[in-house]
Amino acid sequence: MSSEPIKIGLLGLGNVGQGVVNVLRTNADEISRRVGRPLQVTHASARDLNRKRAVSTDGIELVADPMHIARDADVDIVIEAIGGMEPARALLLAALERGKPVVTANKALVAVHGNEIFAAGAKSGVPVSFEAAVAGGIPIIKALREGLSGNRISGLAGIINGTCNYILTQMSVKGQSFADALADAQKLGYAEADPTFDIQGVDAAHKLTIMASIAFGIPLSFDAVHCEGVPSVSTQDMQIAQSLGYRIKLLGIAQHLESGVSLRVHPTLVPDDQLIARVDGVLNAVVVQGNAVGPVGFYGAGAGGDATASAMVADLIDVARGLGAPSQHQVPALGFGVQGVKPLPLLPISEIESSYYLRVQVADQPGVLKAMTSVLAESDISIEAILQKEPREHEDATVALITNVVQEAKFDSALKSLTALPFVRADATRIRVEHFKA
Amino acid sequence: MSSEPIKIGLLGLGNVGQGVVNVLRTNADEISRRVGRPLQVTHASARDLNRKRAVSTDGIELVADPMHIARDADVDIVIEAIGGMEPARALLLAALERGKPVVTANKALVAVHGNEIFAAGAKSGVPVSFEAAVAGGIPIIKALREGLSGNRISGLAGIINGTCNYILTQMSVKGQSFADALADAQKLGYAEADPTFDIQGVDAAHKLTIMASIAFGIPLSFDAVHCEGVPSVSTQDMQIAQSLGYRIKLLGIAQHLESGVSLRVHPTLVPDDQLIARVDGVLNAVVVQGNAVGPVGFYGAGAGGDATASAMVADLIDVARGLGAPSQHQVPALGFGVQGVKPLPLLPISEIESSYYLRVQVADQPGVLKAMTSVLAESDISIEAILQKEPREHEDATVALITNVVQEAKFDSALKSLTALPFVRADATRIRVEHFKA
Repeated sequence: MSSEPIKIGLLGLGNVGQGVVNVLRTNADEISRRVGRPLQVTHASARDLNRKRAVSTDGIELVADPMHIARDADVDIVIEAIGGMEPARALLLAALERGKPVVTANKALVAVHGNEIFAAGAKSGVPVSFEAAVAGGIPIIKALREGLSGNRISGLAGIINGTCNYILTQMSVKGQSFADALADAQKLGYAEADPTFDIQGVDAAHKLTIMASIAFGIPLSFDAVHCEGVPSVSTQDMQIAQSLGYRIKLLGIAQHLESGVSLRVHPTLVPDDQLIARVDGVLNAVVVQGNAVGPVGFYGAGAGGDATASAMVADLIDVARGLGAPSQHQVPALGFGVQGVKPLPLLPISEIESSYYLRVQVADQPGVLKAMTSVLAESDISIEAILQKEPREHEDATVALITNVVQEAKFDSALKSLTALPFVRADATRIRVEHFKA
Repeated sequence: MSSEPIKIGLLGLGNVGQGVVNVLRTNADEISRRVGRPLQVTHASARDLNRKRAVSTDGIELVADPMHIARDADVDIVIEAIGGMEPARALLLAALERGKPVVTANKALVAVHGNEIFAAGAKSGVPVSFEAAVAGGIPIIKALREGLSGNRISGLAGIINGTCNYILTQMSVKGQSFADALADAQKLGYAEADPTFDIQGVDAAHKLTIMASIAFGIPLSFDAVHCEGVPSVSTQDMQIAQSLGYRIKLLGIAQHLESGVSLRVHPTLVPDDQLIARVDGVLNAVVVQGNAVGPVGFYGAGAGGDATASAMVADLIDVARGLGAPSQHQVPALGFGVQGVKPLPLLPISEIESSYYLRVQVADQPGVLKAMTSVLAESDISIEAILQKEPREHEDATVALITNVVQEAKFDSALKSLTALPFVRADATRIRVEHFKA
């Protein structure tokens, strides 16, 4: 076996790109003992070639144009750490066309253009790897694609956006408002100046899209994800949920039901005796339900330069081992081969089944609970838990309840009748509940 | 690509062997979509060919002698689900000698004879896979070997024996005695009639041995594991630990320190705000500390026919994909190639560093605490937490404390001075504490 270094071309020298350089250097001994050859970043691109960086770029040929690296015959493997759609997409396609394996951390790109990129990889017979695209350093892609490959996976749910989890944790533990928690997250660098993608659940939807395709063997279907963000969560609901034995988390949920696949990101009540309810701060966690293994959980750092680099370097090691191997011996991008990936019906949110948390303000008068439960009972909705808060004088009473599992359309219809009752004062708040039962 | 089934020879039709047949059948569609070819158990061995089984053996050639299958030219991959040392060892060596990849769930065999078996696999250029040997269905072997391969792993700790975790959970949650909890575990089938291997920590030591070799790239070193079981844990210590904010778990701990590697299995206090402290009942969990990723955790079912089969079938799918691939493209058994596995010094338990829980009975007299803390301070041992229980009349007082991190030899020497104090009544209880700090 050759002991020549494997030459890596790195696109982007930001936080993640520098993490990759750092991890490859710091752990060079372990890595070459694993691969049998050293892995070396020989080429890197950066917008500003003269910028001061935390890692030394000695021995790395720096160029401004990343396309130069994607096309360079002297590069064995291309890593993309630029982010965004273009030019990242064009760069990966150019590298794949030239028969170079690619490793990327770009969740938005994979979620939206993954089908095209994987097809390009399959055509050239080289792998496309993206462990870092979901849940940072947690090896969840490998777990879904290989570690749990003996299972029919019926569903998965994850805390896959550290920004939102930090905000919700601050609201829960410190009683902060959403706005204050967001401001703190921005101060600490956990949230961007424009936090829209994170707090509206779009980033989580990208990651969910990727996990669902691997879990169920379906094409990437980002447009089918129903997405609700965290700004709608109030500290009042958080406190009531806690009294009822739940925490509120932003979950990405994928379910393989008989009628099709449900993909959704939304604030969710989780029973506080579930481990995932205890995953706080910027940590990520994913629970997968397989028909052989039962529930399996994973948690760890979901972001950060070195944690993301941990995942990218693991991909590099896999790819390096496979360099030159006939493509039928490679693990397909989604675990299922090109022939094996098959679309399934994608369910609208109205067709999912869930249990619901409902909070309403009602006039403080007799018979309220009876009338409410009657309306729900007419739709075969039963109440699993209920909490009525003593109103202060001349104020409305608050009623909060948790229902059994029911189809969303049916629940919403019952909710409409409920809010039409004369003593119901204000708009109701409803949040889906996930019990993680097998 | 051929669409002929890949032929699997299954050694042993017990609980795990039947699980493999069941999972391969139930999930046949997903599995052949992943591999591109069906996986089929064509041969199986069983001691009693006529025994009634929960799964049908239609279409499977049953034989009494497993060696017949290990040597059968018509078998592509051999799975071993017999357990124990012999004939399992001879069977795997025979299959490997004939160039057949092997998949095994046999932790005792891998921990004790793994070096020999891996060498035989490397010689024939075929893989030896053993995901099911550790933590059942949790894909921890793959995570350590591949998913976290970019890291230098400094340590790991796991709840890797479901029997012990069930017993400790019952003691903690229900206040049961060890004996009662064990009896319950036996009634429920969580503990064997002779539970020695489980409760003395030997089973956990097997699993720890395997994980440590993959994490650190060292030869399997079962004899170096320091092993203490759960029978020494009292409900009194459990309750005091809880008052101090800890739970007691049987952990397998591997640490890569500057001076060498520490391998140990023992009851351990874990802070109750750590997720692993909340992993109850028969569940397993492992926390790994990598220098790039930080701490990453895994939890799920650690035993059971289908959960174990989940891991074995995942191995089968990997092996099936690699059938016929040149051996340099295979993932080595320990992640590190034969050249990459290097011994490190194995530390005796006296050289580890830990924080300690200490409980002593003392005469109810003034100056006791002062004398105790003085003795500890003389050895530079500081106290992080302390609890003194009000004695009932004419009884001794109980003092429990948690120390800072200190070398075990130094702690034990201080403990000797402490128990020599005239007012200390009985033997002290000391339990190691693991804080899971990076």
